[in-house]
Amino acid sequence: MKAEIIAVGSELLLGQITNTNAKFISAKLAENGIDVHYQTVVGDNPARLDEVLEIAKKRADVLIFTGGLGPTKDDMTKETIVKHLGTTLVSDDEALLYIQQYFERSGREMTENNKKQALVFKGATVLPNRKGMAPGMAVEKDGVRYVLLPGPPHEMEPMFIDEAIPYLLGVLGKIEVITSRVLKFYGIGEAELEYRIQPILERQTNPTVAPLATSDAVTLRLTAKAESIDEALKLIAPVEEEIRSIVGEYIFGTDEDTLASKAADLLIGKGWTISAAESLTAGLFMAELAGESGISSSLEGGVVVYNERTKTEQLGIDTDLLDEFGVVSAECAAALAANVKRKFGTDIGVGLTGAAGPDPHDGKPSGTVWIGIAMKDMEPETYKLLLSGSRNVNRLRAARFALFYLIKHLTER
Amino acid sequence: MKAEIIAVGSELLLGQITNTNAKFISAKLAENGIDVHYQTVVGDNPARLDEVLEIAKKRADVLIFTGGLGPTKDDMTKETIVKHLGTTLVSDDEALLYIQQYFERSGREMTENNKKQALVFKGATVLPNRKGMAPGMAVEKDGVRYVLLPGPPHEMEPMFIDEAIPYLLGVLGKIEVITSRVLKFYGIGEAELEYRIQPILERQTNPTVAPLATSDAVTLRLTAKAESIDEALKLIAPVEEEIRSIVGEYIFGTDEDTLASKAADLLIGKGWTISAAESLTAGLFMAELAGESGISSSLEGGVVVYNERTKTEQLGIDTDLLDEFGVVSAECAAALAANVKRKFGTDIGVGLTGAAGPDPHDGKPSGTVWIGIAMKDMEPETYKLLLSGSRNVNRLRAARFALFYLIKHLTER
Repeated sequence: MKAEIIAVGSELLLGQITNTNAKFISAKLAENGIDVHYQTVVGDNPARLDEVLEIAKKRADVLIFTGGLGPTKDDMTKETIVKHLGTTLVSDDEALLYIQQYFERSGREMTENNKKQALVFKGATVLPNRKGMAPGMAVEKDGVRYVLLPGPPHEMEPMFIDEAIPYLLGVLGKIEVITSRVLKFYGIGEAELEYRIQPILERQTNPTVAPLATSDAVTLRLTAKAESIDEALKLIAPVEEEIRSIVGEYIFGTDEDTLASKAADLLIGKGWTISAAESLTAGLFMAELAGESGISSSLEGGVVVYNERTKTEQLGIDTDLLDEFGVVSAECAAALAANVKRKFGTDIGVGLTGAAGPDPHDGKPSGTVWIGIAMKDMEPETYKLLLSGSRNVNRLRAARFALFYLIKHLTER
Repeated sequence: MKAEIIAVGSELLLGQITNTNAKFISAKLAENGIDVHYQTVVGDNPARLDEVLEIAKKRADVLIFTGGLGPTKDDMTKETIVKHLGTTLVSDDEALLYIQQYFERSGREMTENNKKQALVFKGATVLPNRKGMAPGMAVEKDGVRYVLLPGPPHEMEPMFIDEAIPYLLGVLGKIEVITSRVLKFYGIGEAELEYRIQPILERQTNPTVAPLATSDAVTLRLTAKAESIDEALKLIAPVEEEIRSIVGEYIFGTDEDTLASKAADLLIGKGWTISAAESLTAGLFMAELAGESGISSSLEGGVVVYNERTKTEQLGIDTDLLDEFGVVSAECAAALAANVKRKFGTDIGVGLTGAAGPDPHDGKPSGTVWIGIAMKDMEPETYKLLLSGSRNVNRLRAARFALFYLIKHLTER
């Protein structure tokens, strides 16, 4: 089965938005063994969409459309395709009811043009929209499948996963299930990770092992096909174990884990409290943790001490220590961690200091960072980073390395 | 002139990366008055790229290709197009020298396949690559222009701006210049902004006035065409003035300004110091400010006080005040601002408290936020927000509203 993804929307051609839908759909189709041969973008223009249809149906078996299902005059995806296929639009009772209820809930008057959103192709499989009003739909004509999805990603993405993928797998008559497990790494580059597990990467077919670097982590996706989820997991387990035996020290979590969510889960699970003293990151570490719901039982607070005066006045860092070692030092990071822990009366204290860049700071080159972590009843331990990014990349990476080292401390105890 | 953007790369079809190049090129072409009718993505597959070429050259006057100019076997864009056009590849001396120098500088051995990168179409205009090795090129055949650009955005973007745009404007024989000025808004939605300046939007042709909402601001781009930049700016000025007379209260900056950069510029310019006490944002406000280079002369630091205990113990917030008004209140925000200002000895103190969500906090519904700003020698002023986003959208918007109100205070004095 060959797929083409067709996004409809002049805002894409004007460069006002990025076609993230194409990436999302492509990735999910790849996971499910369906090849994408083309992605096409066309404006809100019936004649040009018709030409795109004519080309696409000759070179693909399934055409996936995004956008143009809304109530306005610009929205002409359904009307153009229905004309091309020579079928008709009928109002879907369930979709209409849903739209009416939507307006009732929000206390607004439903205008006539909103009824247009409930129109679907005659005989189509309706794909319910749980996050918005316009339903999606799927229909077959002359061996080609046409799948229509709304444009807004927060509506399209759940509809694609929950409705369109099962529809396509049903068409393919696939009885096998596909299950993935994602291992998440920090502190190791994608190239080095690939190098170190090269034999595994080359050998695997089921599960496949696919590396991918995202902005906040390097990941390995292990994907197995089998007749049941249990069997697929059984295929994944020994390969995961082998990977862990080689590069396990860099793994901080799995699947949907982020550094912040993993650290928060561990803190909340142990019932331990934490505070932080931040210099170069100026609150980023605490702000990342605070993004996790439920963290208020562990995160008590902390201080941002952005210059030497506040480090000494607000946190009692010894001026002799700063004179001898400087503010970008293991000694300063350890004192930040120990003092904030004491001042806030928490189980854990974290200290961050460094030269974010672009200029050197206190004689240390841009990118030099020291992290201190003071665990319950223990002397602070310190970690040095030498980062090479821009000012704000360095600041974000410093905060994330602190989360990574914190996770290591929390899992070791 | 009608353009089609063709991205070549299987990594796009596998959903491993997003086609941000298409957005960038589309936006720049729109600014320069060139319409994009299609965006196409095709894999590293000569037969399919050849078919795409055949279709595109019939429906567009300029085809802009990204990707596939590198040294590896996968890179086949040049080879496929050269065959299609029936021309030949020749080595470009300047490009080859540049590649050789690149390897000498990095102390690595230049392998034979790297010479492939210096091959360009016979008779083509070579577009130098100042950020990487593979040059771009532009050539005309049967009235259609073929522009080839490298795939990595950090190489493609400067090449497109500095080389490809002047080439295209030269082809068009355009002597006019195009100049834009961007007005940046906060605290007003895109729909309301459009509604309030509707007569201006409908009337304007030169300058054009285009609204656009991005993740951190709503913007209006005023774009004028004239024979010189001075004349274009003279066309823009009265329209900008008219817009400011209607919705000026929401404008925080222009062009490349962000909320954080504008606030930092004003603080540094006045030589004023600032500190903050953050509850729901947990450091986000300070971290946004600290992203600006040079801010260390103004940002002294602050505290994150994430629960009631730390608010009273670390910042001396009166327990009676919290009992009477609660932590999510104007009174608490004002006290946070005043107390952190006094404690850190700064000119300005900012306080943030609220219910980030998803649950209500201290009896206040999710999304309720209070911001306090204590300026030099003044009583704190407070602002209430009622936000409706997710937890982290609310936290980020709270921090940005605080920057917005701070900018208003700084520009009024």
